Amino acid sequence: MPVRVAVLGAGLVGMHFAVGLERVKSGEIEPYGVPFAEYKMEVPIDDLEIVGFFDVDEKKVGKTVYDVATKSLGQLLPIPRSLNDVQVFRGLHFKSLAGLPFKAKGLEEEYGIEGGVQKLFEVIDEIKPDVVLNVITTENVSPLGSSEAYEKALFSGNITASQAYAYVLSKYLEKKKIAMANFIPSPLANDEGLIKIYEEKEGLILGDDGATGATPLTADILEHLANRNRKVISIAQFNIGGNTDFLALTVPERNLMKEITKSSIVKDILGYDAPHYIKPTGFLEPLGDKKFVAMHVWWKTFNGLEDELVVNIRINDSPALAGLMVDATRISASLLRRDIKGTVYEVNAFFMKRPGPPGSKNASRIVAYHNLLEKLRELGIVS
Amino acid sequence: MPVRVAVLGAGLVGMHFAVGLERVKSGEIEPYGVPFAEYKMEVPIDDLEIVGFFDVDEKKVGKTVYDVATKSLGQLLPIPRSLNDVQVFRGLHFKSLAGLPFKAKGLEEEYGIEGGVQKLFEVIDEIKPDVVLNVITTENVSPLGSSEAYEKALFSGNITASQAYAYVLSKYLEKKKIAMANFIPSPLANDEGLIKIYEEKEGLILGDDGATGATPLTADILEHLANRNRKVISIAQFNIGGNTDFLALTVPERNLMKEITKSSIVKDILGYDAPHYIKPTGFLEPLGDKKFVAMHVWWKTFNGLEDELVVNIRINDSPALAGLMVDATRISASLLRRDIKGTVYEVNAFFMKRPGPPGSKNASRIVAYHNLLEKLRELGIVS
Amino acid sequence: MPVRVAVLGAGLVGMHFAVGLERVKSGEIEPYGVPFAEYKMEVPIDDLEIVGFFDVDEKKVGKTVYDVATKSLGQLLPIPRSLNDVQVFRGLHFKSLAGLPFKAKGLEEEYGIEGGVQKLFEVIDEIKPDVVLNVITTENVSPLGSSEAYEKALFSGNITASQAYAYVLSKYLEKKKIAMANFIPSPLANDEGLIKIYEEKEGLILGDDGATGATPLTADILEHLANRNRKVISIAQFNIGGNTDFLALTVPERNLMKEITKSSIVKDILGYDAPHYIKPTGFLEPLGDKKFVAMHVWWKTFNGLEDELVVNIRINDSPALAGLMVDATRISASLLRRDIKGTVYEVNAFFMKRPGPPGSKNASRIVAYHNLLEKLRELGIVS
Amino acid sequence: MPVRVAVLGAGLVGMHFAVGLERVKSGEIEPYGVPFAEYKMEVPIDDLEIVGFFDVDEKKVGKTVYDVATKSLGQLLPIPRSLNDVQVFRGLHFKSLAGLPFKAKGLEEEYGIEGGVQKLFEVIDEIKPDVVLNVITTENVSPLGSSEAYEKALFSGNITASQAYAYVLSKYLEKKKIAMANFIPSPLANDEGLIKIYEEKEGLILGDDGATGATPLTADILEHLANRNRKVISIAQFNIGGNTDFLALTVPERNLMKEITKSSIVKDILGYDAPHYIKPTGFLEPLGDKKFVAMHVWWKTFNGLEDELVVNIRINDSPALAGLMVDATRISASLLRRDIKGTVYEVNAFFMKRPGPPGSKNASRIVAYHNLLEKLRELGIVS
Repeated sequence: MPVRVAVLGAGLVGMHFAVGLERVKSGEIEPYGVPFAEYKMEVPIDDLEIVGFFDVDEKKVGKTVYDVATKSLGQLLPIPRSLNDVQVFRGLHFKSLAGLPFKAKGLEEEYGIEGGVQKLFEVIDEIKPDVVLNVITTENVSPLGSSEAYEKALFSGNITASQAYAYVLSKYLEKKKIAMANFIPSPLANDEGLIKIYEEKEGLILGDDGATGATPLTADILEHLANRNRKVISIAQFNIGGNTDFLALTVPERNLMKEITKSSIVKDILGYDAPHYIKPTGFLEPLGDKKFVAMHVWWKTFNGLEDELVVNIRINDSPALAGLMVDATRISASLLRRDIKGTVYEVNAFFMKRPGPPGSKNASRIVAYHNLLEKLRELGIVS
Repeated sequence: MPVRVAVLGAGLVGMHFAVGLERVKSGEIEPYGVPFAEYKMEVPIDDLEIVGFFDVDEKKVGKTVYDVATKSLGQLLPIPRSLNDVQVFRGLHFKSLAGLPFKAKGLEEEYGIEGGVQKLFEVIDEIKPDVVLNVITTENVSPLGSSEAYEKALFSGNITASQAYAYVLSKYLEKKKIAMANFIPSPLANDEGLIKIYEEKEGLILGDDGATGATPLTADILEHLANRNRKVISIAQFNIGGNTDFLALTVPERNLMKEITKSSIVKDILGYDAPHYIKPTGFLEPLGDKKFVAMHVWWKTFNGLEDELVVNIRINDSPALAGLMVDATRISASLLRRDIKGTVYEVNAFFMKRPGPPGSKNASRIVAYHNLLEKLRELGIVS
Repeated sequence: MPVRVAVLGAGLVGMHFAVGLERVKSGEIEPYGVPFAEYKMEVPIDDLEIVGFFDVDEKKVGKTVYDVATKSLGQLLPIPRSLNDVQVFRGLHFKSLAGLPFKAKGLEEEYGIEGGVQKLFEVIDEIKPDVVLNVITTENVSPLGSSEAYEKALFSGNITASQAYAYVLSKYLEKKKIAMANFIPSPLANDEGLIKIYEEKEGLILGDDGATGATPLTADILEHLANRNRKVISIAQFNIGGNTDFLALTVPERNLMKEITKSSIVKDILGYDAPHYIKPTGFLEPLGDKKFVAMHVWWKTFNGLEDELVVNIRINDSPALAGLMVDATRISASLLRRDIKGTVYEVNAFFMKRPGPPGSKNASRIVAYHNLLEKLRELGIVS
Repeated sequence: MPVRVAVLGAGLVGMHFAVGLERVKSGEIEPYGVPFAEYKMEVPIDDLEIVGFFDVDEKKVGKTVYDVATKSLGQLLPIPRSLNDVQVFRGLHFKSLAGLPFKAKGLEEEYGIEGGVQKLFEVIDEIKPDVVLNVITTENVSPLGSSEAYEKALFSGNITASQAYAYVLSKYLEKKKIAMANFIPSPLANDEGLIKIYEEKEGLILGDDGATGATPLTADILEHLANRNRKVISIAQFNIGGNTDFLALTVPERNLMKEITKSSIVKDILGYDAPHYIKPTGFLEPLGDKKFVAMHVWWKTFNGLEDELVVNIRINDSPALAGLMVDATRISASLLRRDIKGTVYEVNAFFMKRPGPPGSKNASRIVAYHNLLEKLRELGIVS
């Protein structure tokens, strides 16, 4: 039974998702980086079918995903021809690219807010996605909190693209069950109001902020130290990269969104707020999508002595997230089939840096993984 | 209710255990590095009472632990006066220090094998330990397999010190319940025959090879990668230090013992034997007990791309192990009180690099920790 | 023949200079970290005599250097009693500590500008320094350019502390030859006007920005790559520490001063402006004076292939600079004895991150060292 | 005026030299990794003409360099068609590949020693090289010391391939001036006897052991520390790779040769023999030619405090050496044109890890580079 997937944001992550998924499906590559690929899951990878992308970049809207992927990844990877059948639709903008060097126009800029929302609704009704994955550029957002607040924010234009998408999709829930998985820091699965809307309309909202890069590894290293009751004196973690995400983070407000989710792991896992500096640090164009991370952790061990650990990583940012998206999609589809609604902490705890619902703790990734695996087995999603 | 602890080996690890334990008990330092110190355990740390050390180094035998600790750690740490009350008894040698620059004489060298064993028996009967911790220098050993084989090996002298201690202690089980925890690579909890002896006599044998240093962290990093189905291309891990343990490992046969336990984690955790080079690499005297570890891991991520991670650690080897010993002792005492006998995989899986019984798999440390915690709760050892 | 040294700024660097110098003179420690200590120099280290410190922090002014050093370094190091004879005089402020958590009052705040300058002049005339070392907190400064500009800036108060000190000292040159060595980023030896003033009055002004920390090593690593014509693709360098210097750099304008000097080495050494991110990155209090540096360099080698290098350093910031100051002082004294005036590029090129006079290039440190050594030999300063 | 180059050893280094050189000549790539490419040299790179390779591997002998390069580098790089014109001739073996998994046959095995030497002589006379570069696999060798000793060793077969080549080439000097540059550890330019032979016959012998990989960088880092009189406490350096060179070093005697040259830099540059562990550490096949290096340096700085530095490198071994070979060739040709004979320390000091003549000190690379540049300018080789 096919699972129809739409992707918000035709950037690098989206392109890696599309290209990688098609390459895995055709047998060209192994499904490395897809967390549960070694397990037998209800929804096999082959069942995933990409039905559309949404973007506001004038260079992408109206193109095929094949064309867009060729431009961004063609030098690096073979682009599957099958992506010729998938289109990049115009999506919502709401200034989500403000301050960045792109020429962007959203549906709401073309048709007015009401017209634009109507247009989006129509496209969604045409492509009929089961799962919608949000990977647009990091925005600066606050939770809105209620259906009324969303309604008001949307039609006044004082809303971010992610929230607008989430709200429009919630309206579509009246016609069809849908899951939205939010892989950027915007608080969607951390917005009590939005979760309530999705619960009532029997949709699923997962998020927030896909757990890739250095933060998940930091979480596991901190858990490792916590398991030995080593007292962390300080943590410094630097990130530098050359993709749009890092470019966006040179805008201070966007950076702040990242910092919050990154920092919360310290207290959640160690149980105390060890002094730390954990931030996306800078933009360095030649690094491209393969960022450089440096981390220093210093702690007190038994008998009052001190140890130190340094981690340096060179990691491809976007494919790591794209791999997670494959399984977030498969799990979302299975959850919908079981009439599970609202948000699901166990799923968020593994896949997301800032797992909803609001107030949830960050667990270490290894713990979260095994908890999720257990839950998936209980539900019969993994056998 | 006090727990009486004896330690085999008055080297750095033993001294850190003694000094650190007394400092924690007196409130001078926090119990950092003691895994379960933050939990309420049946046996509080304050109940642990060191009743004796055993060694064969002529410079240590007959001295107080205060004197020995002052010599090895006095420059670094304050040595608690209470260690004046603990003695270093002569123990068994059986060539365990052969090839190393120490003047050693074991009980069996002074009194003959039979006389030496008798002497050891008498000292043990005098100090009446509940838990015996083995931290003598790494030997080259094979499992013996049966009571008869032990009897024969012991009295022919073709036995290692660890095995001889384990066997003599098993005989003492007729008089008193005892747990032996083996923190060196010698296969004691990995010797089916020895486990059977302890089971029959209602003693406890835990081991082997205390899980400190780079290997446990490597295990957790590999688990982190396995959880994401990242395909490990290669793993290189170097270790260099300046303590006796590293000196001993310049003797190739001793090195081999370490290498086996270090390598087994790769297959056990990843599920396939990724190409690896994981070895204690060299001896560099000025590094002392604070070794330097470098690790390189390279893997395939989603969409066929490759990532790399480098970890560098500067870590105090002996205190890390000494901290584990505190809780292995507390748990051992509680297990004995519950009439648990033989060996206990869940305990070994967290505390040991090569958890017995033979054939057991290495789990990642974080998984092993949470499994152990659950078991300790079930047994009411942790509340 | 004694060399009288005064120090501007009684912070960590100054205290390490005072404590380390006295400890070396008393034979308590070896002169490690003093570049030319192994050579026979005209001025032996023993000839250096500290005659006074200047500061504006109310907690330091009026105290002995012994007291101030005990407070800042007493936990770490033995403080020589001889520092009881050296006083911390009140110096100039001119808002150099604005925005930082210190209660500061400068002479100009106590006596008005004219009175304050007069007061400073008197103290200097009393302690009669041969060499004055500037290690006050990093300020945000622009060159002033002429004697008139200095006069006007000073008496209007629109001047920084470093510039004010430099100008007041230049007036004192009429009474006595003096060398001022500036180890902070403020452009003194990079101010054409100031150099001219010193030249005319036969004084010496060296600077700017003492070459310690990661930048000199970066310079040598880049030279290493340049010597092989490896094409640098990108350089990322992060710095994090917990001393006042890092605290000051959380004030963006101060950070900017550092960034300029750090970045100039790239083009000067490689010959092209390789993309780079080289900045003091953050403040993390527990790191204290021992900062953590991470650097990533990526380049193209022969046959179009690519290599990568990562450097991680844990380095004591202040002692490194203090060690350089010892030899900058010895060399300055010898230069004065030879009637050398203005500024001396060869000295600055080794000791400073931004060597004056303005327009000078940064050489790699190893090249600068050997050039300086040659010059010192020619002048008979080193034999 | 063309310079005719022959290469001993058709392994990875040789192939990178051939492929890279042709790609540079055709303008396909920039001459990155060629040290003096940015300077105007007497011999432009375009003048270098490869006239033949020598090897004993049955899979290579008789093939074109195009075929051999395609096999070893074809997956990684485009192989220039021009290499179809260059042949791999059978060379001398003398057990240089003993213990390694290659089927090898040398000329001396095919024709007997006398016949084999005659055969080699004939081929050389046919291809008429100006410069011969030695990059065969690392052997275990001792200097022979005199013309008679060489004669005897050669005809008894108790000689290594490098020595045999060097001696046969020395005989050819009677017909034509030639330079041999030895990039492997075998002591050729460190053999007083051989240098004398070359001097008498007006040939040039440069060597030994091409300065690539971690050692040259280590040298410069140690120089950096020495320039500040920092007292090195310890140095640990690990190397692991997956090419034939690392495979060969799993044979202990071959490893020893590397260790000696690597260790000598410590004392030569620091002036004292700081405790160190500097060794090629292991073979890990997937790393291939891009080895992983980890280095830890620990030192005492001013005021008795301690700093640490860690360097991690991922570097392509063979291209780095191949790039050096280009300029060693150009310089050798220019030296021959100036009738310079024997060996030349300044050239060796930059290009080689163990610069001849025997007794020469290792300088840091940056110093050696600038000294060489100066000499090349004096000689008019660089203008």
